[in-house]
Amino acid sequence: MRIAIDAMGGDNAPFEIVKGVDIASKEYPNVQIILVGNKDKIEDCYKQLDACMAENIAVVHTDVAVTMEDDPMVVMKEKNKSSMAIGLKLLCDNEAEAFISAGNTGALHTASTLIVRKIHGVRRSAIATVLPLKTPILMLDSGANPVVTADILNQWAIIGSSYVNLMFNVEKPRVGLLNNGTEEHKGTPVVAEAYQLLKANENINFVGNIESKEIPNCPCDVLITDGFTGNITLKLIEGFGSFMFSSLKEIFTTSFITKMAFLPLKKHLKKFKKTFDASEYGGAPLLGLKKPVIKAHGSSKANDIKSAVRQAIQYCESNIIDKISNILN
Amino acid sequence: MRIAIDAMGGDNAPFEIVKGVDIASKEYPNVQIILVGNKDKIEDCYKQLDACMAENIAVVHTDVAVTMEDDPMVVMKEKNKSSMAIGLKLLCDNEAEAFISAGNTGALHTASTLIVRKIHGVRRSAIATVLPLKTPILMLDSGANPVVTADILNQWAIIGSSYVNLMFNVEKPRVGLLNNGTEEHKGTPVVAEAYQLLKANENINFVGNIESKEIPNCPCDVLITDGFTGNITLKLIEGFGSFMFSSLKEIFTTSFITKMAFLPLKKHLKKFKKTFDASEYGGAPLLGLKKPVIKAHGSSKANDIKSAVRQAIQYCESNIIDKISNILN
Repeated sequence: MRIAIDAMGGDNAPFEIVKGVDIASKEYPNVQIILVGNKDKIEDCYKQLDACMAENIAVVHTDVAVTMEDDPMVVMKEKNKSSMAIGLKLLCDNEAEAFISAGNTGALHTASTLIVRKIHGVRRSAIATVLPLKTPILMLDSGANPVVTADILNQWAIIGSSYVNLMFNVEKPRVGLLNNGTEEHKGTPVVAEAYQLLKANENINFVGNIESKEIPNCPCDVLITDGFTGNITLKLIEGFGSFMFSSLKEIFTTSFITKMAFLPLKKHLKKFKKTFDASEYGGAPLLGLKKPVIKAHGSSKANDIKSAVRQAIQYCESNIIDKISNILN
Repeated sequence: MRIAIDAMGGDNAPFEIVKGVDIASKEYPNVQIILVGNKDKIEDCYKQLDACMAENIAVVHTDVAVTMEDDPMVVMKEKNKSSMAIGLKLLCDNEAEAFISAGNTGALHTASTLIVRKIHGVRRSAIATVLPLKTPILMLDSGANPVVTADILNQWAIIGSSYVNLMFNVEKPRVGLLNNGTEEHKGTPVVAEAYQLLKANENINFVGNIESKEIPNCPCDVLITDGFTGNITLKLIEGFGSFMFSSLKEIFTTSFITKMAFLPLKKHLKKFKKTFDASEYGGAPLLGLKKPVIKAHGSSKANDIKSAVRQAIQYCESNIIDKISNILN
């Protein structure tokens, strides 16, 4: 199996990407890793790591990187020689079985759709993100498609269920529709129409509308919503999580006494905080594409990249794409 | 000044409503309070309270109550003799200057729009909710209008600014547009169009797009969004807040040692928790109507009702409605 990785994407590229690949190459010696990026810089990273490049790593050189500020169409136009474009072409040309990038999400989604293309019958590919909770919820779409139709939402239910079924080993994933009330008629006309399609869909286990206040109680395994609402939901959870923990830190460091009080609570709070850590689930898969593309978090560290490699291996081995294709065609 | 109050609306009606009115009637002896509801039940509440009805309280009797399950149109059809309908008619007929209800939100919004009617020029009335944060943010719409136009969002910016200016004494309220990114072009076509209208609007202090992760940092005083996204945002904050605090409670009660550790932290945590308490701001005003209508929280207790009365008094005295009308006409 060959996995291509964008060495130039993300806030901590190339060092943390290379470091993550170094760890992954040892943990998965049978996997061939193709690092796409500036050869000299990658070699510098190895010098910093005081390590040699493992035999199962190959480098495909390019000087060009997509930045976070670049327009989503840039990969197809001025930057068609970028690490992101080359990685996706390797995937398209069967030179790799999966591609991982921590770079510009919009650019990755647009370029993936145009280079790797969608599974036959899929109307829109979605960014699927794991909401880090006691039981993970896979939410799609988390930002790529602000405007959708009921039909698209219904397809995502099938796509998301297949992913959760095969990747998280959940037999009949509970599919919920994010809505502003539990009653059937609630929501925008698109969401109300989607409710009816989901209810009639025999390929999924639809559990109805989910109000956002219920999300912490994990009422479903797959949460379906448009990319606008999904993005707002995801970022609100992230923002409130870090706000709560930084406020708690402030409280615990108020005085000597509060600092002492913190000590016996430390391990419990650390464990609780870990519940909100999405990194162990790897990156966000771009679902609906013909090949596995994984968006690692922009702030990914070495361990996150390693997790994304593990996720890519499992994704390739799981036949999710065939399963989705069979249901939709 | 006369304020009508729905004695039959909300989870704790009529007792907590009557109790709240009893407190308010003493605190605001110059305000005439009209309790609309079942006379016998209201008298029973006073017996339970072991109190006499103050002279500044009048009761308008009706047996009919709108339930939480009722369809929003019910007030105009089968239940046009309900406490909610009668209260709104008192307002419409100048028998009262403001109306407060803790009942069915959808019904209250629909009936208010049809009975009290909108300010001339206002396209849609909105439910404005205070997000309880270090500095409060007034978010509109929080649920009444799942589908909007750019023009409606732009009007709400004016309406929300006027309210925050006069009720919270903020000179130039910062108006933000809830969006899935900070760049101008971000969001659905409606949101992107609204950005341009808000940017060109000289009656407001527009500070641009607000990503949901920034909300805890209070980046604006007025947050504009459609009722679908607003509802999801509001309920997610409520849901995550109570999830976090119940999880912390679990941690603190793990063992004798953690219980001891909790003691010196108690007052700090209590103060922090109070930050999330919206009740001190009263209820959610239905903005854009010709008269003040306030939706108290469904789970309102006596103190919340008292706060809503104070809010109604201030609302009446503030000339917000004239100000909005002057800007829009």
